[in-house]
Amino acid sequence: MPPVITAFERSPDRGQGLARDMRVRWALEEVGQPYEVRPVSFQAMKEPAHLALHPFGQIPTYEEGDLVLFESGAIVLHIAERHAGLLPDDANARGRAIAWMFAALNTVEPPIVERSMAVLFERDKPWSRERLPMLDARVRQRLSELSSRLGDAPWLDGAFSAGDLLMTTVLRRLNSSGLLNEYPSLSAYVARSEARPAYQRAFAAQREAFNAVNG
Amino acid sequence: MPPVITAFERSPDRGQGLARDMRVRWALEEVGQPYEVRPVSFQAMKEPAHLALHPFGQIPTYEEGDLVLFESGAIVLHIAERHAGLLPDDANARGRAIAWMFAALNTVEPPIVERSMAVLFERDKPWSRERLPMLDARVRQRLSELSSRLGDAPWLDGAFSAGDLLMTTVLRRLNSSGLLNEYPSLSAYVARSEARPAYQRAFAAQREAFNAVNG
Repeated sequence: MPPVITAFERSPDRGQGLARDMRVRWALEEVGQPYEVRPVSFQAMKEPAHLALHPFGQIPTYEEGDLVLFESGAIVLHIAERHAGLLPDDANARGRAIAWMFAALNTVEPPIVERSMAVLFERDKPWSRERLPMLDARVRQRLSELSSRLGDAPWLDGAFSAGDLLMTTVLRRLNSSGLLNEYPSLSAYVARSEARPAYQRAFAAQREAFNAVNG
Repeated sequence: MPPVITAFERSPDRGQGLARDMRVRWALEEVGQPYEVRPVSFQAMKEPAHLALHPFGQIPTYEEGDLVLFESGAIVLHIAERHAGLLPDDANARGRAIAWMFAALNTVEPPIVERSMAVLFERDKPWSRERLPMLDARVRQRLSELSSRLGDAPWLDGAFSAGDLLMTTVLRRLNSSGLLNEYPSLSAYVARSEARPAYQRAFAAQREAFNAVNG
């Protein structure tokens, strides 16, 4: 029985691969594991059956036999620990790859999400013009630090890892902002990720799921 | 040689245990491992020597032999994987405890930090009065969901774990907001954590470090 993950029935990103199920699809493609997807409507996400799987009423979840997991970072780590391809064998390198997973989700993503939320929900507010440059500056600070660390390397620490996978999905949330274009090495890093066959299979699968209900 | 962690030379929280070194100190106390602390000034945090340890110029870092880690979540996970006391033995329960670690840092903490930043840096702005209720509502949504899941249980999933440790440190960031008091079960949860001897030893150590340079 392959694991079952949940995804938006109608993703608000309209199939751009920005919803968090993309992280899990991509991880499963990288390690060559089949999976099934159960779409969940916005209404069903907040009902008891789904809340039993995900306390915060979000997607993705991951069901594998008796195991139920939530949080895309935890699911990707679970997959990476059980199958070769997303974490190095060397113990220290493995610890550093996991550090990049947390850095993606706890240091780089929050200012990016904060900026996105302000653009989505406060664009017409009188303060938007004054606040947005402040939010942009917080994102740029992280991009600048990340770019400095990456340097000329293809990936954040040695071979491609679950840290690169999560960081790529976080940086892609900036697609519509234009901010990533200011950092050519980071744009190239994201493009390098997107060129991976596993990424392309995962992207095509979520796009197909979106088109099936919205086409 | 015990591991060496970094902490603020002068913590902006004035010894309230809200800086992220507290998470690592507490984890090391829970598993009974000695450690050393190297204080870092705000200026030194942004210089090359520290950036080599932490790409984003923050604290804490963790040095143990050849291993250098950053990100408090990754450091706590590293400690929890190597010593008994912070993760259950059962593989599924272990996966769920790690899911709570990611939930604390990627789902619960971001709206709390966003609210704190707004209070710190935008309190005197003309929009503060209209925006703060929106930010409070986002925090309350997470607290409400978390409270529903916790129910009458002492901890989030079975025995105390690294997930509870991180969630407690995240919820404590609300101390000055009064929001936590609206959820008595969550207040009691935090108090239960704070009563743990390992927490108290870690808290005393960071308070002593603050008093030593500011006394």
